[in-house]
Amino acid sequence: MTETATRGRARLADPGEGIGLDELALATRNHGMPLEALRHDVTPPGLHYVLTHYDIPAVDPERWRLEVTGAVDRPLELDLTALTARPALSARVTIECAGNGRARLQPRPVSQPWLLEAVGTAAWTGVPLAAVLAEAGITAGAVDVVFTGADHGVERGVEQDYARALPLAEALRPDVLLAWEMNGAALPPQHGAPLRLVVPGWYGMAHVKWLTRIEVLDRPFEGFQNAKAYRLKADLDDPGTPVDRIRPRALMAPPGWPDFMTRERFLRPGPATLSGRAWSGRAPLRAVEVSTDGGATWGAADLAAADPAAPWAWRAWTAPWTPEPGRHELVVRAVDELGAQPLEQEWNRQGMANNAVQRVPVTVLPD
Amino acid sequence: MTETATRGRARLADPGEGIGLDELALATRNHGMPLEALRHDVTPPGLHYVLTHYDIPAVDPERWRLEVTGAVDRPLELDLTALTARPALSARVTIECAGNGRARLQPRPVSQPWLLEAVGTAAWTGVPLAAVLAEAGITAGAVDVVFTGADHGVERGVEQDYARALPLAEALRPDVLLAWEMNGAALPPQHGAPLRLVVPGWYGMAHVKWLTRIEVLDRPFEGFQNAKAYRLKADLDDPGTPVDRIRPRALMAPPGWPDFMTRERFLRPGPATLSGRAWSGRAPLRAVEVSTDGGATWGAADLAAADPAAPWAWRAWTAPWTPEPGRHELVVRAVDELGAQPLEQEWNRQGMANNAVQRVPVTVLPD
Repeated sequence: MTETATRGRARLADPGEGIGLDELALATRNHGMPLEALRHDVTPPGLHYVLTHYDIPAVDPERWRLEVTGAVDRPLELDLTALTARPALSARVTIECAGNGRARLQPRPVSQPWLLEAVGTAAWTGVPLAAVLAEAGITAGAVDVVFTGADHGVERGVEQDYARALPLAEALRPDVLLAWEMNGAALPPQHGAPLRLVVPGWYGMAHVKWLTRIEVLDRPFEGFQNAKAYRLKADLDDPGTPVDRIRPRALMAPPGWPDFMTRERFLRPGPATLSGRAWSGRAPLRAVEVSTDGGATWGAADLAAADPAAPWAWRAWTAPWTPEPGRHELVVRAVDELGAQPLEQEWNRQGMANNAVQRVPVTVLPD
Repeated sequence: MTETATRGRARLADPGEGIGLDELALATRNHGMPLEALRHDVTPPGLHYVLTHYDIPAVDPERWRLEVTGAVDRPLELDLTALTARPALSARVTIECAGNGRARLQPRPVSQPWLLEAVGTAAWTGVPLAAVLAEAGITAGAVDVVFTGADHGVERGVEQDYARALPLAEALRPDVLLAWEMNGAALPPQHGAPLRLVVPGWYGMAHVKWLTRIEVLDRPFEGFQNAKAYRLKADLDDPGTPVDRIRPRALMAPPGWPDFMTRERFLRPGPATLSGRAWSGRAPLRAVEVSTDGGATWGAADLAAADPAAPWAWRAWTAPWTPEPGRHELVVRAVDELGAQPLEQEWNRQGMANNAVQRVPVTVLPD
């Protein structure tokens, strides 16, 4: 890793400052899931959110190898044929970007400017990471497992291959996968071909794409993405706490139809059904609540039962609504065993894990 | 079509005004093709640019019908089984959004804020439109053919299903397709499932998605998307001229690696190969030219021969470059039989068809 002087620290936007061309360049290449795609239980690949820190790397699957090294008894070098010959599992998993909601924060941390749409659910197929680690033989005293991708770039002056560590206990969970398929097809380039990590319940930064190397460490990992980038910090001097599991969130497919430019919603009066999905990576979901009066009063939505085969996938919810003509503000919140989504932002310096509730202004037209 | 008062006309951003949350909401749901994907001759579906005016509609392919009506002898109503039973063609076609380059214009028309990346190439499979029109029997005096999609919304106060007309002569071209497949698979929802129009050589607004209705008119179409939205206008009073065929453009996959936030590029010194793709919908391509000194001097790139089987698909180009350490500005331009891409913007009121050249600042590191 070499230091190249670009910029040292993430910036906060000034009050009222619009989105800059740097943020826009990220927004036009990364993309969210249009919220009407909440109708799909499994998000079609091109609608699943994508965040790529650097460029999507060109990986030749024939020449690609996965190295398993560090504090292990038997270092491994595996090709795709060797990996895909193993017994595979499939799991439907909801993944959300840790930066989802960032562009709504005030003041706004300048980075990828997500509003609400950085989420998606896919069926991932691969081999349990624990099985590969068992084959390599983890030595006593191992602490962290570092996953390195083929994507290369600079971030706040640090040149790096993207690398993230998991605590050993998380890496050994039986549902953490080394995945080569998404929704029954080979991984698309932007989703990590030929191999990516899937860590159900964690925000997206943990699901390392274009995986080339797994290193077991006998000490905590101090790399950029763990020590600096993905932390909940009050200010620049705060070392902060790690971003890890996904906070609860419910999203609504906005009803009616939009204005092209403002994305305002319009609807005809009469019986309607509000619908969407809800999830949490930190604790079981308990309820979804809907308000049609801007949060003054709340009612329980009908929440689909948890699927025991997919404990980390979002769950559908619906709520009937028969609106009168006029302006309404719809609000939805998920409640898990640890509490409800906040009505107001819980600000932090890098704009991580903002799960403040979605608000959907709707104009119901005259009869 | 009912008028709902939202906003009357597209706005121009003030000097120095950042991108607004309304523009950002469009940028996070629509998405461009990350420029490193220029390495793919056929763009994988999730990397192909997408622009959806309103919401992606939920169309049930079992209940879906295509109506062919208006100035025809035999109105038709076709289901998917009837359509897909016909002899089909496949064509590799490059499609670019008419708004590509808009966010670089000064002053900036406020709409979908594309930088450079609203493009993609796919293999589309379907039946020639001309065959279906022949079956319906176009009556003498027909002028325009209107294509209506299932997507519904409001635009500058006009509630509408998205609808665009083609002049009859364009509609009768043998290479205009009613397509149900993209790259050998059923159309994804965001690309127009179950059926879309493909008009090779034209900007994206002509390729109507989620097609439900084809109407032959014996008079010019006066609908919003032809008469108001997609026009090259000097100012609000100018009726303007229609946006139609794609102007020439060459794009470069930026070399080296990026800074996450600024997207600045870094590279090591030594021999490199610059590469990308070039296309034009208005005239045959003649050359691609590259400058490595900000446009002071130019050299011819090596442009791949045109593929007679894909006259409307982009062509690959390469150019060798052995840079010295320091800052460089790379520029690339396509030249077609009608001329070269402009070095400076050709501004218009709605920010359409801005094909000013791409500029790529690159820092080459010390040896």
